Amino acid sequence: MTITPAVKAILANYESDNPGTKANLARMLMHGNLAGTGKLIILPVDQGFEHGPARSFAVNPPAYDPHYHFQLAIDAGLNAYAAPLGMIEAGADTFAGQIPTILKLNSSNSWATTKDQAVTGSVDDALRLGCSAIGFTIYPGSDHFFDLVEEIRALAEEAKAVGLAVVVWSYPRGGDLSKAGETALDVSAYAAHMAAEIGAHIIKVKLPTDHIEQKEAEKAYAGTDWSNQADRVRHVVQSSFAGRRIVIFSGGAAKDADSVYQDARDIRDGGGFGSIIGRNSFQRPRDEALAMLAKLQRIYKGEE
Amino acid sequence: MTITPAVKAILANYESDNPGTKANLARMLMHGNLAGTGKLIILPVDQGFEHGPARSFAVNPPAYDPHYHFQLAIDAGLNAYAAPLGMIEAGADTFAGQIPTILKLNSSNSWATTKDQAVTGSVDDALRLGCSAIGFTIYPGSDHFFDLVEEIRALAEEAKAVGLAVVVWSYPRGGDLSKAGETALDVSAYAAHMAAEIGAHIIKVKLPTDHIEQKEAEKAYAGTDWSNQADRVRHVVQSSFAGRRIVIFSGGAAKDADSVYQDARDIRDGGGFGSIIGRNSFQRPRDEALAMLAKLQRIYKGEE
Amino acid sequence: MTITPAVKAILANYESDNPGTKANLARMLMHGNLAGTGKLIILPVDQGFEHGPARSFAVNPPAYDPHYHFQLAIDAGLNAYAAPLGMIEAGADTFAGQIPTILKLNSSNSWATTKDQAVTGSVDDALRLGCSAIGFTIYPGSDHFFDLVEEIRALAEEAKAVGLAVVVWSYPRGGDLSKAGETALDVSAYAAHMAAEIGAHIIKVKLPTDHIEQKEAEKAYAGTDWSNQADRVRHVVQSSFAGRRIVIFSGGAAKDADSVYQDARDIRDGGGFGSIIGRNSFQRPRDEALAMLAKLQRIYKGEE
Amino acid sequence: MTITPAVKAILANYESDNPGTKANLARMLMHGNLAGTGKLIILPVDQGFEHGPARSFAVNPPAYDPHYHFQLAIDAGLNAYAAPLGMIEAGADTFAGQIPTILKLNSSNSWATTKDQAVTGSVDDALRLGCSAIGFTIYPGSDHFFDLVEEIRALAEEAKAVGLAVVVWSYPRGGDLSKAGETALDVSAYAAHMAAEIGAHIIKVKLPTDHIEQKEAEKAYAGTDWSNQADRVRHVVQSSFAGRRIVIFSGGAAKDADSVYQDARDIRDGGGFGSIIGRNSFQRPRDEALAMLAKLQRIYKGEE
Amino acid sequence: MTITPAVKAILANYESDNPGTKANLARMLMHGNLAGTGKLIILPVDQGFEHGPARSFAVNPPAYDPHYHFQLAIDAGLNAYAAPLGMIEAGADTFAGQIPTILKLNSSNSWATTKDQAVTGSVDDALRLGCSAIGFTIYPGSDHFFDLVEEIRALAEEAKAVGLAVVVWSYPRGGDLSKAGETALDVSAYAAHMAAEIGAHIIKVKLPTDHIEQKEAEKAYAGTDWSNQADRVRHVVQSSFAGRRIVIFSGGAAKDADSVYQDARDIRDGGGFGSIIGRNSFQRPRDEALAMLAKLQRIYKGEE
Repeated sequence: MTITPAVKAILANYESDNPGTKANLARMLMHGNLAGTGKLIILPVDQGFEHGPARSFAVNPPAYDPHYHFQLAIDAGLNAYAAPLGMIEAGADTFAGQIPTILKLNSSNSWATTKDQAVTGSVDDALRLGCSAIGFTIYPGSDHFFDLVEEIRALAEEAKAVGLAVVVWSYPRGGDLSKAGETALDVSAYAAHMAAEIGAHIIKVKLPTDHIEQKEAEKAYAGTDWSNQADRVRHVVQSSFAGRRIVIFSGGAAKDADSVYQDARDIRDGGGFGSIIGRNSFQRPRDEALAMLAKLQRIYKGEE
Repeated sequence: MTITPAVKAILANYESDNPGTKANLARMLMHGNLAGTGKLIILPVDQGFEHGPARSFAVNPPAYDPHYHFQLAIDAGLNAYAAPLGMIEAGADTFAGQIPTILKLNSSNSWATTKDQAVTGSVDDALRLGCSAIGFTIYPGSDHFFDLVEEIRALAEEAKAVGLAVVVWSYPRGGDLSKAGETALDVSAYAAHMAAEIGAHIIKVKLPTDHIEQKEAEKAYAGTDWSNQADRVRHVVQSSFAGRRIVIFSGGAAKDADSVYQDARDIRDGGGFGSIIGRNSFQRPRDEALAMLAKLQRIYKGEE
Repeated sequence: MTITPAVKAILANYESDNPGTKANLARMLMHGNLAGTGKLIILPVDQGFEHGPARSFAVNPPAYDPHYHFQLAIDAGLNAYAAPLGMIEAGADTFAGQIPTILKLNSSNSWATTKDQAVTGSVDDALRLGCSAIGFTIYPGSDHFFDLVEEIRALAEEAKAVGLAVVVWSYPRGGDLSKAGETALDVSAYAAHMAAEIGAHIIKVKLPTDHIEQKEAEKAYAGTDWSNQADRVRHVVQSSFAGRRIVIFSGGAAKDADSVYQDARDIRDGGGFGSIIGRNSFQRPRDEALAMLAKLQRIYKGEE
Repeated sequence: MTITPAVKAILANYESDNPGTKANLARMLMHGNLAGTGKLIILPVDQGFEHGPARSFAVNPPAYDPHYHFQLAIDAGLNAYAAPLGMIEAGADTFAGQIPTILKLNSSNSWATTKDQAVTGSVDDALRLGCSAIGFTIYPGSDHFFDLVEEIRALAEEAKAVGLAVVVWSYPRGGDLSKAGETALDVSAYAAHMAAEIGAHIIKVKLPTDHIEQKEAEKAYAGTDWSNQADRVRHVVQSSFAGRRIVIFSGGAAKDADSVYQDARDIRDGGGFGSIIGRNSFQRPRDEALAMLAKLQRIYKGEE
Repeated sequence: MTITPAVKAILANYESDNPGTKANLARMLMHGNLAGTGKLIILPVDQGFEHGPARSFAVNPPAYDPHYHFQLAIDAGLNAYAAPLGMIEAGADTFAGQIPTILKLNSSNSWATTKDQAVTGSVDDALRLGCSAIGFTIYPGSDHFFDLVEEIRALAEEAKAVGLAVVVWSYPRGGDLSKAGETALDVSAYAAHMAAEIGAHIIKVKLPTDHIEQKEAEKAYAGTDWSNQADRVRHVVQSSFAGRRIVIFSGGAAKDADSVYQDARDIRDGGGFGSIIGRNSFQRPRDEALAMLAKLQRIYKGEE
């Protein structure tokens, strides 16, 4: 398929990257039902690692099988599938060449006693498994933030040199941040900005609330009505180098379908680049999940 | 011997691995009395290191000699023998080519002041000693879990590149886990899943009780009767990539023979892949141990 | 697009390769108008280097521009585009993600005083330029054959480790080979076989004549009628691990269209995997070339 | 432009450096409106990372775009532009060769729980992005000072070997320092001196007050009137190897224009080498910023 | 100085290069009297090495001093100065930052018994000496051509990774080439094309005659009148990726000024990018050389 003007414009923003990295970004942007639109929906399945298998998959038992998720992402026409080492290893051969994959290189779990993650994969793993990108989570605010940043810095430099793209999950938590602060508008915008600063190609943050966490930031946000979610999305995109970096949003825990659709409309209307939808897809029965993802794609195409 | 369909089906699940690693998995699955059944019994002897020599061997003094264990595993027709560096070095030449070996690459001991382990061997050691696999213990829940994961990540990447298999002992402990929680059903399933996520080929966990440790997980387990051990085994296997990874179970401290047999029947009936039996074999007189292991093999073959 | 059974069957033959290499093979097999058929047409443009720019491009001056060839391959819906370093560097960014590319890692030229080639690119170049494969020419028969083989051996090992595919141009020449012998049936089959032996994923040879070059081989070919080109193609494919390796055929110097079509029918009927067509496409006016390539694709689809 | 005697004299002080590093120092000293004067004004934009995007850019929204800052520095005829990895990557191609750049290799943020910084770039990044220098912040007084020093030591050694210049931001904070002490005269002079001691080519400190923080230092400062800012600047320059190292001063948070001009006159009169002006330029409307920077350049030229 | 559209258009052709390499290309294109025109004149002084000092410098004795040439290039407002290691080392500090330099990494000499060159410098040398590019000579046609190509391949890959530009002197000689053939039109075009194929950013060839050396190439050149030098230049530029690579021409041995001027007009009119002028400048008295170079610059600007 010929690259569309929308995708060309996005690729042009990655002006310091080599053609290998751009080709991998293009692969994700030109795959599936949203190919060429400049929007993307990614299926991430690291919840087994992060929350445990039963909490993640018991509600929809076929999802215990790693192949289930590859197939779901392919059948739903998603842009990419992201998972940790074991999950990718368990299907990379069967599904080779069928969908762009993102190897998540660090992971935490329910029992972690620190706001940190363990490195669980390498750039060489991503190459041998045929992945288009590496993924990495940072925790802005955490006491371990600097360590996480130094880990992704080295991994990202290595990934870019061999033509892979870099996807950063930026999840504020820990340190002095309040629980509400983790999804505050100022905090989300800052978290997205820091991911851009450390060189991420694709940034994933949570949809922000209208709470402002930092006293010092209040002035900058005063005088504007932040009650509209689309406006908050727009601010996060603006904070990611004025839209020069792809920012996608996660939906969090499973919720009712209408909320998921409304979120997508707000992301679209605010100029966001798409959604990363895990539990809201694989925790539903497969048919329901496929229907929901199809509707989300229509929303991103502006058809609903 | 021709690879059986049962073993072929298992090997096919390791789809991202190179033929070297598959050949080593096949070597273990095609060795001994259970060859070709898809089941395995492994003899592990790291108890000298972990608990001290007298606590481990005084009850059966010939077991002080490393050769004793090689010979026991060979004579019992087991699938593999696992031990730390010194134990393997002390017999690897005499018994070269007689039984697949697993070099345990980390170890703890009775005096450890942290829930951690020391790395005590290398992938190069495993190659020069003719081993089929490396072994490694992780402690999910421990404050040192992330360090352990980063150690095995690097060792596993190296091992896979040179065609070795990777066996992970996943033993929850430390952090916020209660003592009962260490063998809780949700915890065991999660521990097995995390071993799969970090890329283990063979996962070893303890047989779980029907205790549920995590409040957040209760909902996922509610409404099901977990009193049957075989059902609990089945859940752990399901949590290990829907049975795509070999999961074997340990018996723990020495106990009466009938309990050992019942455990094996439950593992078999629940779809587990076998047992790893240390103290319950080498702490018995040799004849008794051989008889017990033979009976266990008959159980796994469905003959008893 | 979902991988077709035809492509799955081909990929299954590369059983020792990692998922990264299979994904890159799949990319070529699933791209363009022949996507999914198991057939492929590749555009190679190394003639500027090999024969000089005027001899290659004067007949169709737009072809002096490297972008011309990327665009031709894309617009014709070919499976891949192959060229040396400079030609790829000159368009890899503009056309990133639009067509699989093969970086040709060695080259000769009209003035070469030996039957050898110079290494002109690296595996790292292939990664930074987003290529799916490396390409390399060997000259079976040449005094430099062993050197060439040792070069590709090292490059192929490196390429396979990082998930790239390996394409070998196997062109017998030099040493004791007669001119007619360079395309003799026994020689072509042997050349294809040696490429398979050194680990090529895709093998490119010239269409063989019915000449038998080697005295010692005559007996093996006696008693069979080799006058049919499709039969000769079938023998070359058979010699490439009984069809377990992709073998494609080159047409050589520009010639009349009907000959090109007949060659394609013979390749198809003999079980060959496709064509690599350089001068016969870019030395024609663009419209004519597009029409010819479209017809060739229909031939490979069995439509003409 | 021919190197002026003023610049030649400065370069001569870097007598152990290779010609590559001197060429990069010369590039900064010979670029823009102050070219050849021996003075320099640098635009640093790491405030997005350090304080968050909204606090930094909401007052002048075009500044959310990384291109804005490259263009501002170019249009204002500044000597160099300094920023972290992401900001440089986002414009390095578009503005290649148009202004010397300094890649800031470490960064902190508003939520940091320690007086430390994370390393966010490498010397290789600086080379591939065409930078003239690396930048690095140290926190004299902090518990992490030794770690920071050891990081910059290694990076500076590497940078000097490949002909890059080294710019050190020396910002006392943490440990036993009082808030007032952070900009005390003795502390600023000491901070500049330590930057010189660890091998910085260009040292950036804040303009010092006349406060003396250290009891042990009081005697050394007694008997002199330090009320004049130019005298304090002269002391800091003197403390930086008697003026053998370039020392530039920052203005801190945005303030009224007259204060900015007066600071520049004091820096100039005290023998300082120039200013590094971030928020005081990009937080003003572009026209106002350009006017201010032009006036500052005239001040440094002694024209106002 | 702001990059001009002419220079921007040239830089855009180097689409696979990192910003560092583009910045160094920009430095050469934006320096001296031809800055911004897209044309360049380079002073090369490797004749002492190639032909001996007396043959090179006796006619103008101040030219024995390496500083003479740096100063000449600076005073003449040339774009760059190219020389071997020793010549650059002897002036790199004195003239740091005053003119872009090209470190010539291989050299031959009058006594060479083969058509080969010795590698005399490294990429690390180029970095420590502050050079903008590396230079390298290849001898198409020579028995040593493949060795030379493999040397520059490795050096160019290393240079590009650290942001340096690559200049290739492509001088056909040796093998089956006749003396007249060394500057034949087909040979020059082919030599330029091969330099482009191996990844050169700037290509230097000799001005071609209208001789056609290769029998096989005659057809491609037949039917066109090649008596006009500008047309021959145009063909060489066309052969260098249709003008996507900078091609500059050398004047060879010293000759009368009018010939030099006419050559420049022909280069300009044929779309060439400039001249590399060694003996014709430094073998004249300095004043005469400066006058000649000034006039050449006016010619390239279209003023004469």
